[in-house]
Amino acid sequence: MSQHLEPITIILVEPQFPGNIGMVCRAMKNMGLSRLRLVAGCNHRDSEAVKFAVAAVDLLEQAVCFNTLAEALADVTTSIATTRRSGKYRQELLTPPQAAQALLRQSGTTALVFGREDHGLSTADLSLCTLQATIPSSGELGSLNLAQAVLIFCYELFNAAALAPDIPQRTPVPSGDLEPLFEQMSATLQKIGYLNPQNPDHIMRAVRRILFRAELDRRDLAIMRGMFSQIDWAAANFSERKGQP
Amino acid sequence: MSQHLEPITIILVEPQFPGNIGMVCRAMKNMGLSRLRLVAGCNHRDSEAVKFAVAAVDLLEQAVCFNTLAEALADVTTSIATTRRSGKYRQELLTPPQAAQALLRQSGTTALVFGREDHGLSTADLSLCTLQATIPSSGELGSLNLAQAVLIFCYELFNAAALAPDIPQRTPVPSGDLEPLFEQMSATLQKIGYLNPQNPDHIMRAVRRILFRAELDRRDLAIMRGMFSQIDWAAANFSERKGQP
Repeated sequence: MSQHLEPITIILVEPQFPGNIGMVCRAMKNMGLSRLRLVAGCNHRDSEAVKFAVAAVDLLEQAVCFNTLAEALADVTTSIATTRRSGKYRQELLTPPQAAQALLRQSGTTALVFGREDHGLSTADLSLCTLQATIPSSGELGSLNLAQAVLIFCYELFNAAALAPDIPQRTPVPSGDLEPLFEQMSATLQKIGYLNPQNPDHIMRAVRRILFRAELDRRDLAIMRGMFSQIDWAAANFSERKGQP
Repeated sequence: MSQHLEPITIILVEPQFPGNIGMVCRAMKNMGLSRLRLVAGCNHRDSEAVKFAVAAVDLLEQAVCFNTLAEALADVTTSIATTRRSGKYRQELLTPPQAAQALLRQSGTTALVFGREDHGLSTADLSLCTLQATIPSSGELGSLNLAQAVLIFCYELFNAAALAPDIPQRTPVPSGDLEPLFEQMSATLQKIGYLNPQNPDHIMRAVRRILFRAELDRRDLAIMRGMFSQIDWAAANFSERKGQP
């Protein structure tokens, strides 16, 4: 069972209270997870963090810190952003059991991403993650404590891993390898007048969603990059021949 | 959905840290539960409790205190003890989803019972509850924080209540009404030499389990009491006739 859970990483974006980081470590270890990444967080070596980690202080010590979420996701294949909100740029929200299945059927490093205690994840954070999930909760008080939210997902992962068959898994490329494709697409699509140069991200967010859902592997990525190189070339050469600017 | 969750009570036995009580309130409210009972606990009006309850401070204020678990269970029908251990007197352990189903198919006040942060529930506590449940967790670190354990069960209740059909529910008698039957049975079974008077509880624990699983309703209880009154009478009269002591 543990080999299924081993590559799954918990990422906390700007956690504010050391005690919460400690409690997250304990919840992770309770459910057999061990990899923690912190993005621009508070001091996780604080005595409060150690106190709440109890016997999971080893996870705290092994936590890896990053300056940005993009850096923390660079080697991650499937990343699931957890959110309470559904808005303009929000997409389908998975339930915790669905999120567990989505992570367990991938190989490579996968991640669950949790936002700040007060504001959660920003729209920019969400657009970096390949999927989104939420915990069903009462309308009266919907906001869970950070460590409680982490526990629910880890509990569902633990349950699902116990039943996970040893089937071959797909290997999507990590997020860090997709960003150059998105940049290339954005540049080309602006050049050919498809994207509004004043606000190219509006449509690009939808394009990102489409390609995230497609879970591109190495070959898929090469095909997409080749396709947009060709579009770029064709646009330049065809417009020149027609004498367009 | 809320009418299914409304009668479900969380009982904390001797909680030691006010902060945990506060976090329990928040977790309960997150998942639509509202009834909290405390048995011989620490001061739940402490500022730490209020701080961690956040927007669920109303549950904290409405918490009802009892001196003993037996008193807290007196009007409860199905009560599920949560435990990490399985030992001599331990019985089948339900998973959290199974526990949720067991509570939702009953009417009347039902309860989930959680023990002390350090030692959990005692054997005496367990023998007062009608069923037992445990949270599957990693062998490396099996012990969950109290509020985390409460959250898992409340989360499963919330999920199950969302799908619960409006079918007629059975109405078992509350635990407080079963205790006189157990006392009657114990006395009679000692009198007829079935129970060892040095340790009548050893077999009585198994008898309690049997009748708890049977979920006696009002008529079942009358039948059992009548049966043991008759056994008592017959034992007295038959032994007298035979000249036995």
